[in-house]
Amino acid sequence: MSELRHDPINRRWVNIAVERSRRPSEFHFAPPVPPEDEPPCDFCPGRESSTPPELYAVRESGGPNTPGWLVRVIPNKAPAFAIEGDADRRGWGVYDRMRGIGAHEIVIETPVHRVKPHELPLLQKAAAFNASKARIADLLRDPRFKYILLFRNYGQAAGATLHHPAQQIVATPVTPPAIAQQLETARAHYHHKERCLFCDVIDQELTEGSRIVHVDDGYVTFAPYASRFPYEIHLYPRRHQHQFTDLSNAAMEGLAAHMLEVFRRLDVVLGDAPLNWMLVNAPNPHAGVRRAGYWNTLPWDFHWHFEVLPRLTPLAGFEWGTGLYINPTPPEDAAAFLRDAR
Amino acid sequence: MSELRHDPINRRWVNIAVERSRRPSEFHFAPPVPPEDEPPCDFCPGRESSTPPELYAVRESGGPNTPGWLVRVIPNKAPAFAIEGDADRRGWGVYDRMRGIGAHEIVIETPVHRVKPHELPLLQKAAAFNASKARIADLLRDPRFKYILLFRNYGQAAGATLHHPAQQIVATPVTPPAIAQQLETARAHYHHKERCLFCDVIDQELTEGSRIVHVDDGYVTFAPYASRFPYEIHLYPRRHQHQFTDLSNAAMEGLAAHMLEVFRRLDVVLGDAPLNWMLVNAPNPHAGVRRAGYWNTLPWDFHWHFEVLPRLTPLAGFEWGTGLYINPTPPEDAAAFLRDAR
Repeated sequence: MSELRHDPINRRWVNIAVERSRRPSEFHFAPPVPPEDEPPCDFCPGRESSTPPELYAVRESGGPNTPGWLVRVIPNKAPAFAIEGDADRRGWGVYDRMRGIGAHEIVIETPVHRVKPHELPLLQKAAAFNASKARIADLLRDPRFKYILLFRNYGQAAGATLHHPAQQIVATPVTPPAIAQQLETARAHYHHKERCLFCDVIDQELTEGSRIVHVDDGYVTFAPYASRFPYEIHLYPRRHQHQFTDLSNAAMEGLAAHMLEVFRRLDVVLGDAPLNWMLVNAPNPHAGVRRAGYWNTLPWDFHWHFEVLPRLTPLAGFEWGTGLYINPTPPEDAAAFLRDAR
Repeated sequence: MSELRHDPINRRWVNIAVERSRRPSEFHFAPPVPPEDEPPCDFCPGRESSTPPELYAVRESGGPNTPGWLVRVIPNKAPAFAIEGDADRRGWGVYDRMRGIGAHEIVIETPVHRVKPHELPLLQKAAAFNASKARIADLLRDPRFKYILLFRNYGQAAGATLHHPAQQIVATPVTPPAIAQQLETARAHYHHKERCLFCDVIDQELTEGSRIVHVDDGYVTFAPYASRFPYEIHLYPRRHQHQFTDLSNAAMEGLAAHMLEVFRRLDVVLGDAPLNWMLVNAPNPHAGVRRAGYWNTLPWDFHWHFEVLPRLTPLAGFEWGTGLYINPTPPEDAAAFLRDAR
């Protein structure tokens, strides 16, 4: 027998197998890490002239677009969204269109070509997050951009096309539906109860304990009650914080340490598995055009967090046809494996 | 430069590459069709006792659970949803849960183990659809089931675990969010304009012509204006029809012929590509519990159709983090390739 569980943040039911769980060893995937002798790529030091000029860098030495950097941010050579111009919104019969304005940047996390997510040194990871935060803060000043997404694709099954560790930043001229849904539920909860929905979820997870993966003073990671996928985990700051850019550079080290420990546990339990992680952040408070409704968000009703999705099973017709999910691994089992990972 | 296009049915923006299109040969995938010498499976004739007893069959000879069938419907051995009992809905702090009641059936499309989607004989395909229709009509009598989904997974990348051609039917105790969204927009359009939203989309597609893949007296298939994926195509009955079960058994032959031609064109252009197809149908008019709002649908504001999704590119962090999509192949290009397929 399975159980249907409701995700109060995304208003989504998930079918969870509660009797027979798939064990970690039952998943099969191609490990993302490249061969040891893979030649340098365009993201490696010394190849700076092969990329567009850098937008931002954390450096130990050297000048712009030369080696000596720890973290380097460049525009994507083939951006999905272009920085110039206006949206130029138009109707077209029953359809609507606009120009694909926005931004698409690459945050090269490290000069080292071959490194698994948990192998990054702590200060390197913190520097990468600080660079991403600086770029997000800069893009938020542009009122054309409704939302700034930060994410990473690790492995071909997760959509990665290059091996060198890199985060991506995409600014979009529309509020993404996934964010609009979370905002809507968070705002309704806040208006009704004068409490943060995400804080309530964190409280219940810490009280129940069975889905907790890792917890320290600053952060908590758990397998969500209505996890869509085996070993899906979410990472939250324990103290309420509206948007990621409110985090101080000093506090970033705690986030980096927490995330590296989470990636280490995933590597112990699943091996080198393909995964996506995404920052789920409040929308741009400076965005123009629409000032009414949920996208003109209050400065306190959101609570930024990360979602980590190991890519172990393909989506099938059931998921595409319904928007519902079937998860063969109860989150309580996934969390127990990850808690015990030595 | 890319273009953002709005899907008026799903209220979803899609980023479409309009300058540089990925050609069909640029996609790489494992062909789903099994080796010619693969031994018989549990869905093959003569192995009827290896499956749960059949629920329905179209037969040329023989009695239940013996060979001689053309199409055979059985319960799934490991169902995601179980047929017995009540939902037993309960709160759990901030969460909600219910028992995973529903139905999960397998429609074995043919006695032949190895056959590509476009190779099925016309009468065989029509018989399979008629069997699925009969099972859907039966499940719709159960007021516990809000929605009945019919779909097929073809190939491992599309989530298929077995090679023998089979459709799946899943009845769910909740209205799936993807269906709720389409109902909501369809109803709003109908109330506002006293016209069917889907009929308006079909009219505009037939007038513009650039996204049409195949059209005959009864059906039209086109690449949607805001296609999420390369070579995504949707198939509609041209005459307005609320739900799939309103289709007469005689008319099913026209549907089967149209769909086989569409699969043939996909095979010519893409080769033997993994894909999912799903029936998008009106929700159960007999479903209980909730009688207000969009799920208590009028008997005329929906318009059933099929969605066909070739699985050529993996989802990445951008899609997971936003619910938006980036499509590297403009639907106009995909439709042109498919129209020209000989």
